[in-house]
Amino acid sequence: MAIQITGLKLPIINEGDEISQIIKDEREFEGSEILVIAHSIISKANGQRTNLKDVDPGERAKKLAKKSNKDPRVCELIIKESNVIKIGKDFIITEKNNRICANAGIDKSNAGKGNVLLPPKKPNQEAEKILKEIDCQGVIISDSIGRPFRKGAVGTTIGYAGLKPFSSYKGLEDLYGRKLETTVECVADELAASANLVFGEASKSKPVAVIEGFKREGEPRDGKIEREKNQSVFR
Amino acid sequence: MAIQITGLKLPIINEGDEISQIIKDEREFEGSEILVIAHSIISKANGQRTNLKDVDPGERAKKLAKKSNKDPRVCELIIKESNVIKIGKDFIITEKNNRICANAGIDKSNAGKGNVLLPPKKPNQEAEKILKEIDCQGVIISDSIGRPFRKGAVGTTIGYAGLKPFSSYKGLEDLYGRKLETTVECVADELAASANLVFGEASKSKPVAVIEGFKREGEPRDGKIEREKNQSVFR
Repeated sequence: MAIQITGLKLPIINEGDEISQIIKDEREFEGSEILVIAHSIISKANGQRTNLKDVDPGERAKKLAKKSNKDPRVCELIIKESNVIKIGKDFIITEKNNRICANAGIDKSNAGKGNVLLPPKKPNQEAEKILKEIDCQGVIISDSIGRPFRKGAVGTTIGYAGLKPFSSYKGLEDLYGRKLETTVECVADELAASANLVFGEASKSKPVAVIEGFKREGEPRDGKIEREKNQSVFR
Repeated sequence: MAIQITGLKLPIINEGDEISQIIKDEREFEGSEILVIAHSIISKANGQRTNLKDVDPGERAKKLAKKSNKDPRVCELIIKESNVIKIGKDFIITEKNNRICANAGIDKSNAGKGNVLLPPKKPNQEAEKILKEIDCQGVIISDSIGRPFRKGAVGTTIGYAGLKPFSSYKGLEDLYGRKLETTVECVADELAASANLVFGEASKSKPVAVIEGFKREGEPRDGKIEREKNQSVFR
């Protein structure tokens, strides 16, 4: 069985657009597909866009901008959107709902002149909404997120619906008949990472990946992907 | 353009086996494929396997075992293989060559009764060796590794050859003509994650994924994937 991943080219998304309808206009679905959707188009459709000329940075934002070499107006938005947990020259690492990422997930790419895109407010709910309207196995809303111990960003799940994000193989036997103990795999993040391989970069505008042929055995599990603070020994 | 990922079923690998030959016996290659190979079969072919009855744990290993609830013999191997950086009830986090993972990457799964598999000593070199013998675009040696802020393990690159691990889109224009600034993506880790979606779990024995149709534009970069200690604000 092979997995196939295809990038869907969409028109530029504007505030008020119906993402599900636009996706359905591009292709038909059979019910077994997994859709991975770049969070940026959800933010755009929802009008989660701010023009920086409308942002008036406060004292705290100005200090943060000085420490981090960033635009004070972006810093103002970062403070509003998240908790800043580490600051350095050229970086601000933030936390919100146990999701740790750079700059509160605020993005200048593909936002239009002078604008920034804020991350979707309720990504799980957005995934549910799309799943209801498109006949597929599951929906993932993704973002490219950096990692503490490894360079470069990778596609990561920030919201999901219709699929179990983890697979556990506990109790299955290995090649030699030994029962597996604790392997838990975050398939949702692996699907989001694989989608990044087909997303069009820059102006290519392929913000949706359709994954066909994925079916996981083992014992799927539900739950939150982000570790709580007390489960993470590196925070 | 779609990406296709296929799992190759191999026979059980034993010490002294020629991995490249065994892979070539399974299928033909056209030169454009990327191969992702589970590190465990490299370790097996290289005889990187230890029977725990032959391990005599020292005092430090015994203390580590008590703190972490783990087998003292496994702890002895962990100490030999890596630097222990965090210990807790049921976990030991280790570092070697800036790679941070659990238990020094030592694995009981598919190792045979009483055995553990040690990670390959020089994974980049192993990838080079296979690339020389198989007509493909690139080779990745992968492992499933946990993440500090997210639950579950994901497929990750521990060695590579023939491909650039990072893509940078600096200078490309976005949908609105704005030049992209700093997005660097770790495509090697995204490829390793996608391969995990087809690897056979438990006794399925599909330790090799063949990725077809992947071609990345932008500006590919070379370099080490692991952050140096002074680049990581969470260590």
